[in-house]
Amino acid sequence: MPNVTFEPDDVTVHVKDGENLLRAAMMADVLVTASCGGDGTCGKCRMIVENGSVDTRGSSKLSKAQVAQGYVLACVTRVIGDVSVRIPPESRPGTAPSRARSGRVANTVLSADDCGARIPRRRDSAAIAKRVVTMTPPDLTDNVSDLTRLVQALRRQHKLTDVVIPIEAVRALPHIGRDGSWSVTALCAEPIGSAPMVSGFQPGDTTAASYGLAVDIGTTTAEVSLVDLNSGEVLASAAEYNAQVARGEDVITRVIASAKDDGLRDLQRLVIETISDLAHAVCSQANVSTDDVITYIAAGNTVMTHLFLGVSPEHIRMSPYIPAAARFPWVSARELGLPGHPGARVATIPCPASWLGGDIVAGVVASGLPWSEKLTLFVDIGTNGEIVLGNKDWLVACSCSAGPAFEGGGILNGMRAASGAIEQVRIDPTTLEPVILSIDNAKPLGICGSGLIDAVSELFMCGAIDRNGKLDADLDSPWIREGDYGLEYVLVGSEESGTGDAIVLTETDIENLIRAKAAIYAGISVLAESLDLSLDRVDEVIIAGGFGHYLDLERVMTIGMIPELPLERFSFIGNGSLLGACHAIRSREMLKRASKVAETVTYLELSVNAAFMESYISASFLPHTDTTLFPRSEQLLETHRMERVGS
Amino acid sequence: MPNVTFEPDDVTVHVKDGENLLRAAMMADVLVTASCGGDGTCGKCRMIVENGSVDTRGSSKLSKAQVAQGYVLACVTRVIGDVSVRIPPESRPGTAPSRARSGRVANTVLSADDCGARIPRRRDSAAIAKRVVTMTPPDLTDNVSDLTRLVQALRRQHKLTDVVIPIEAVRALPHIGRDGSWSVTALCAEPIGSAPMVSGFQPGDTTAASYGLAVDIGTTTAEVSLVDLNSGEVLASAAEYNAQVARGEDVITRVIASAKDDGLRDLQRLVIETISDLAHAVCSQANVSTDDVITYIAAGNTVMTHLFLGVSPEHIRMSPYIPAAARFPWVSARELGLPGHPGARVATIPCPASWLGGDIVAGVVASGLPWSEKLTLFVDIGTNGEIVLGNKDWLVACSCSAGPAFEGGGILNGMRAASGAIEQVRIDPTTLEPVILSIDNAKPLGICGSGLIDAVSELFMCGAIDRNGKLDADLDSPWIREGDYGLEYVLVGSEESGTGDAIVLTETDIENLIRAKAAIYAGISVLAESLDLSLDRVDEVIIAGGFGHYLDLERVMTIGMIPELPLERFSFIGNGSLLGACHAIRSREMLKRASKVAETVTYLELSVNAAFMESYISASFLPHTDTTLFPRSEQLLETHRMERVGS
Repeated sequence: MPNVTFEPDDVTVHVKDGENLLRAAMMADVLVTASCGGDGTCGKCRMIVENGSVDTRGSSKLSKAQVAQGYVLACVTRVIGDVSVRIPPESRPGTAPSRARSGRVANTVLSADDCGARIPRRRDSAAIAKRVVTMTPPDLTDNVSDLTRLVQALRRQHKLTDVVIPIEAVRALPHIGRDGSWSVTALCAEPIGSAPMVSGFQPGDTTAASYGLAVDIGTTTAEVSLVDLNSGEVLASAAEYNAQVARGEDVITRVIASAKDDGLRDLQRLVIETISDLAHAVCSQANVSTDDVITYIAAGNTVMTHLFLGVSPEHIRMSPYIPAAARFPWVSARELGLPGHPGARVATIPCPASWLGGDIVAGVVASGLPWSEKLTLFVDIGTNGEIVLGNKDWLVACSCSAGPAFEGGGILNGMRAASGAIEQVRIDPTTLEPVILSIDNAKPLGICGSGLIDAVSELFMCGAIDRNGKLDADLDSPWIREGDYGLEYVLVGSEESGTGDAIVLTETDIENLIRAKAAIYAGISVLAESLDLSLDRVDEVIIAGGFGHYLDLERVMTIGMIPELPLERFSFIGNGSLLGACHAIRSREMLKRASKVAETVTYLELSVNAAFMESYISASFLPHTDTTLFPRSEQLLETHRMERVGS
Repeated sequence: MPNVTFEPDDVTVHVKDGENLLRAAMMADVLVTASCGGDGTCGKCRMIVENGSVDTRGSSKLSKAQVAQGYVLACVTRVIGDVSVRIPPESRPGTAPSRARSGRVANTVLSADDCGARIPRRRDSAAIAKRVVTMTPPDLTDNVSDLTRLVQALRRQHKLTDVVIPIEAVRALPHIGRDGSWSVTALCAEPIGSAPMVSGFQPGDTTAASYGLAVDIGTTTAEVSLVDLNSGEVLASAAEYNAQVARGEDVITRVIASAKDDGLRDLQRLVIETISDLAHAVCSQANVSTDDVITYIAAGNTVMTHLFLGVSPEHIRMSPYIPAAARFPWVSARELGLPGHPGARVATIPCPASWLGGDIVAGVVASGLPWSEKLTLFVDIGTNGEIVLGNKDWLVACSCSAGPAFEGGGILNGMRAASGAIEQVRIDPTTLEPVILSIDNAKPLGICGSGLIDAVSELFMCGAIDRNGKLDADLDSPWIREGDYGLEYVLVGSEESGTGDAIVLTETDIENLIRAKAAIYAGISVLAESLDLSLDRVDEVIIAGGFGHYLDLERVMTIGMIPELPLERFSFIGNGSLLGACHAIRSREMLKRASKVAETVTYLELSVNAAFMESYISASFLPHTDTTLFPRSEQLLETHRMERVGS
């Protein structure tokens, strides 16, 4: 990991190879002005490279003379080795002293790339794999049926016995067998807990082209990764809003819609269309024929999994909250209406409870938790906050309704973590001028979960909002103003915004974020309390969620969303559901482990838990009503206050 | 079994209770005139009941005085105890001496009712059965999913584990479980060689209404029996021409048609429509809801089984004659387009070879052969003659193309064994006047297999045809005449016929029958020769085929169709395919045995067998070129000749 030293602050951070220089400065808490989201158009984030290697792009905002002196725009510059840069005074947003500390390690800001190191690297075959079967051609002395011939060869060549072969595959065998001169590629499925199946054939040896689609069926967003089953590599990924959003934003609305007339079929059709479009998109992106897609593994919350398979989730929303099924049979992709080989099969990750779905199980598996000796806290932050605590021997879990704030829902300029979403925010403590970085360094279009956490944390530290999240109207700053919905903080002015309108944060937005973080914190506390465990005994914390690529842990702690623990105990796996589905599509062992996790986890129902409501109310402040729980936050707050007074 | 004594002949036969008096006379070889097929309209078959009990119907053909004297019409009179009847002279067709012998036992004419006594009477459950599953209602402390609840109850209450539950059943469970207050009837299928399955549900306890449909998919005729799975009783049966007949009469034509364009789908549709119509008919006849039909077990020859399931049979007709499959997976009735419960499953009896189908396997099982210590010959006589030889330890089989004669095909006035088909024929040796009895005693419409055998045998014994089957044009008889197709024998005059036209037998018809019987005999000989077995070592002979209800063994032997063996070694099981399907639908053990028979039988391919062609040519005479093989026939022929010379 290269070191980046910022002068004159004399601060060094360790960053990953290729890291964006503006992000490195943010990590180091070295503030530079930047208002265009990182697309190089505002030209404000100038730095001078004094030593070392960077990869930069030319900009019309820099004169030839400046370029000769080593000037770069930080936002379009990547670090490719140890480097020392100087921040010129004109790039500083205000006159505040730097909050930076030397020797900071970049992984206090976690990237989704560090995941899964705990998973034992046993290379086993996929639960559905192509296998070449070579049969002896029939003659008058050996005239057993095509199917018998195949079954005999499967036993001899692949040690597969008692194989189920559905009628569609039997129908295809005679001509495919002859087309391939008695050598066929069989789609061999080995579901967990039921007999092996050969679900289809291709003539000859087509094993080189074996692909699977890992699917995260999010309530808001569906995401699909195309996995090469031979190399295990993800060849392409794509995400899109779940078309069911048109029938309601949250799961409860969808459950209600599913119980009406043709509602179930309608909702199933919508999500299948979304996933089908994504499947076509990733295949076309990677130049893969959909006929070589032989498997889907889908992970989603319990309601999404029901709707995806056309199973009514209606009893989930009524006491005693019973899903139709926890573990679903494999189904034919063709019958569901998904593209792929006619024999392609769709497996879903089991859903342990009505409010604990396959997405969480997948995330837990992807995090490596089920192999770990350490006491581990897994927190998936989305519309529902799902929390799992345990190790390789036991698991307990709960789910708390956080609302859609972390996915940009219920936030005036909120958006999901897609290109153009503001994912990092720093605010100058004196002027309150924002410094933003958006996903793909694109012109900012809105703010996603991680940006929101950053923004609220920064505003709180700067004293711009109080413990209730209310903006201080008395502050004299061009960034705080009266807007259409009351007081608002301006993140991006209309001239820099990709939408043409300013991107702002309202008091209602802040309130929604506080509610969401309170639910998460309350869930974590109640789960630990139920086991009589003190939270400081947690050895590892894994955070999952659709925050984009970065999540700033210090800021997450500052707002009191997760307990204060040493930073080195944390990791962030991003979309754990998709990641787990990718693991499960590569390896039958992983799929089996997912099944075991779903079977063994103990679920704590919070809807009937009085301690949870109490805990939630206590957590609905910044960082918490009980300030002793957040000593570091309180200390930081005090330091900042003193600095402001001193300045 | 009542005794019937005929005077003045002084001949007694044992008949089954309720037997028709005219048939009893035929069995006794006591000739009486009868030309209306038995429907009471010709009024010729008068007899006088001297002693004992009969059940008769009044007739306008008898005067009150005659009735007072004990006159009855034999064809509308049933024997209900020992009886003694006198034949008045006016009822005699000619002046020939009686061929009758006293003490004859009726079972030389075999009825399809005597079958299956060899099958061990172990009462086991059906392969698909309804089972009541009672679940504990969910509450907040027991909130596992509906499916998990069901699976737990299945294990506890029915010892069923690792049950496959397809997605359609999962979709149905939530509302059916609640409709039935957590008591459901599950359709439990236990296929041979694969995992148990619950394929559907009904609310509450509906086990009292459990029905299955046994299906014989004949090339010419499909037949369906509705079986009550609780009592094992057949509630209704119905037969209809296979609608595929419109695409060709024989299997080869159908195979060719299936390979064209949409041919396979078209042929599948036709046979499914036929069976679907029959299914509706038998259910409506027995007042059974099709929703309570939970299983089909279908037996057919290999081509019919392929077409029924929509699997291409095209490679069956080309060397090396390979079927797509021998054993087919179970399929959903709904997917095939058959009526029944949405969870109803269709099993087919396995087909050991291209020309040895599930119909024969079913017949062999129905005959009890697989449990027998005795060396048994099983002969199924239809368009193909299939022959199986063996005992409980081993089985060999062959198939020979007999042509459609036995099913009435290729015969000018031929018809299948349905109402109005002439099924028994006697011919007066002096006048050549025919005596006929038709199925259901209906006005004759044509002649079926058993009638054809009777007629040719009688004509041969009377000297009206020679060893080549040629009619003797020199005989002075009103029953032999020149017709549109050359010389013909008149079985029924146009005035007595149900069609308005005379029913005749042409020399071509006789030739077709001789070819057909030659194929059967050649097949039997070659099979025995291949094992170095002498045919007289055969302990039992079981004859199956769609001949109607009766088959006269002596006459079958007279024409040289089957080897001469003592009569007591024979039995006749009628439609063995349907019978076997009925057995298999009642009992999983029987289905399993069918599977074992299909696996273990050794098939001898006759199409490449030179000995068969030789044997076939030798058998193409009446009874055979080697007359030493048929000593009884030859002796009878000589007796008849002497009688004719003497008269």
